[in-house]
Amino acid sequence: MKAPVRIALTGAAGQIGYSLLFRIAVGEMFGKDQPVRLQLLEITPALAALDGVVMELEDCAFPLLMGVETSDQPKTAFRDADFILLIGAKPRGPGMERKDLIEANAAIFSEQGKAIDEVANRNVRVLIVGNPANTNALIVQGNAPNIDPRCFTAMTRLDHNRALAQLAKKTGSHVRNLRQMIIWGNHSSTQYPDISQATVNGRRANDLVDKQWLSHNFIPTVQQRGATIIRARGQSSAASAGNAVIDHMRSWILGTPEDDWVSMAIRSDGSYGTADGLFYSFPCRCSDGHYQVVQGLEIDEFSRERMLVTEQELVQERSAIKHLLP
Amino acid sequence: MKAPVRIALTGAAGQIGYSLLFRIAVGEMFGKDQPVRLQLLEITPALAALDGVVMELEDCAFPLLMGVETSDQPKTAFRDADFILLIGAKPRGPGMERKDLIEANAAIFSEQGKAIDEVANRNVRVLIVGNPANTNALIVQGNAPNIDPRCFTAMTRLDHNRALAQLAKKTGSHVRNLRQMIIWGNHSSTQYPDISQATVNGRRANDLVDKQWLSHNFIPTVQQRGATIIRARGQSSAASAGNAVIDHMRSWILGTPEDDWVSMAIRSDGSYGTADGLFYSFPCRCSDGHYQVVQGLEIDEFSRERMLVTEQELVQERSAIKHLLP
Repeated sequence: MKAPVRIALTGAAGQIGYSLLFRIAVGEMFGKDQPVRLQLLEITPALAALDGVVMELEDCAFPLLMGVETSDQPKTAFRDADFILLIGAKPRGPGMERKDLIEANAAIFSEQGKAIDEVANRNVRVLIVGNPANTNALIVQGNAPNIDPRCFTAMTRLDHNRALAQLAKKTGSHVRNLRQMIIWGNHSSTQYPDISQATVNGRRANDLVDKQWLSHNFIPTVQQRGATIIRARGQSSAASAGNAVIDHMRSWILGTPEDDWVSMAIRSDGSYGTADGLFYSFPCRCSDGHYQVVQGLEIDEFSRERMLVTEQELVQERSAIKHLLP
Repeated sequence: MKAPVRIALTGAAGQIGYSLLFRIAVGEMFGKDQPVRLQLLEITPALAALDGVVMELEDCAFPLLMGVETSDQPKTAFRDADFILLIGAKPRGPGMERKDLIEANAAIFSEQGKAIDEVANRNVRVLIVGNPANTNALIVQGNAPNIDPRCFTAMTRLDHNRALAQLAKKTGSHVRNLRQMIIWGNHSSTQYPDISQATVNGRRANDLVDKQWLSHNFIPTVQQRGATIIRARGQSSAASAGNAVIDHMRSWILGTPEDDWVSMAIRSDGSYGTADGLFYSFPCRCSDGHYQVVQGLEIDEFSRERMLVTEQELVQERSAIKHLLP
């Protein structure tokens, strides 16, 4: 049997955590031959509820689950962690501006970045999900100067999957027949879901749908999908977000198929003219536990404009939290 | 690719449904090569929330998910279903006696039994989870006279897994090294979790723990685990219940290992002296999609007493709903 990997997770008693933990424990993230240890972080008032979640994990009798620990201290929860999933974040309260939200979360994530720097496995892989995810990733990574910046990613896979679902529905195809979707930029309503490289059953998606649908239906639907789900369910997306976490980590660690790629927000190296150092979502191919931005794609005027809008938002978010970066 | 199977599920927008649907859709129940169609039933006021769940299912871009339909009519949701998971039930309200609960649910489940009889695949496999599960199963099966009674089961797998977890913890072992646990009787606080046949790393469990622990700790802990989790989480077990549904159906359809068995509540054929026709939990082995009660186990006085207590409760529950049986 393989040695267990240590997976730390924040916001472990929250809705996404609850949707996600059981799927990790059964082996869906890294395979049915990979034992796991869970190291769960929650805020102090949620530790009692987290105990209940731990009981339920025990009650599943998972063959691969080798242990579960809980803590309200990042330095305890992140110790020796091989993978860290930063799910928990302060939600937007009544009357709170986006700027207030960014600042409230920035404080949490800078503490977590410092803890990762101090106690995690030097080769840790970190996924930031808590919003604003891209800018939180910037803060976490900026506060962990002793870890390779390439070990930090933010999640746009839920947006990627949502875009696949919308294009499949429009073209009467199945998602399994779609390839090469892209989410560019910020995990926010400025993101740019781009079908210009996508194929449907081997045909160019652009030849199957009209520009009108793209601009007025597809792009806003994907951008605003989160709000649509809140309206229907009365709660934000949890199971689909948890599923995207599984997909993101699985792709990163186990690799992407030869004929496809995934979207991941990573620290920009300036690819496609994006500002250096922003966490920006790119098309990425993964193998051997590393990602590479897909290079050399042709970017038309329509795309270029939208890539700039979402980049501009990220630049503004960065300026709001720059005092928290070393 | 295999032809899709049709899986119907009731209470689809509830907590167990939400924990379960995404795991079914990703292929955990019947395997990663088995496409599925979901046919979801909810009460009318929950259909809007269910729409949100369906959106989230779409947003996972599951390769095996071939379609999702929703309805508030059992005859629509169960049509041609190969598998039916009856999760939804009326919860116990304030001031409600157990008898009131049984009657309120009996009305729902007799309607669902009739619908199964009329529209489901003749070879359908039905799992009843909604409480009181055993007696609801009796009602469903009794109202579906044109379906083989062996196609109906009620769930005690969550109790089975809970018992494994407690014994593993006590013996400092891992659940993967335990075999041959048994839950006898009713999925209620009278159930009898029986370790007399169980082994831990090949050793008899009875030689590793004392009778005192068994009577005063193990048995009540397993019997009252549901209430313990409600106290900790503030909500009843959902993810562990959903996981047990996966385990139950997987064992039933894909089979049990050579050296082990599972617990399933099935229509009694009088095995171990139980009253004919009650839905009672037995140790079962499964192969080729069929279960067989494990026969010939020696039952000592300690066990016999407890098996009778839980049987007595089932007899009483049956008498409360006998007017609903044909």
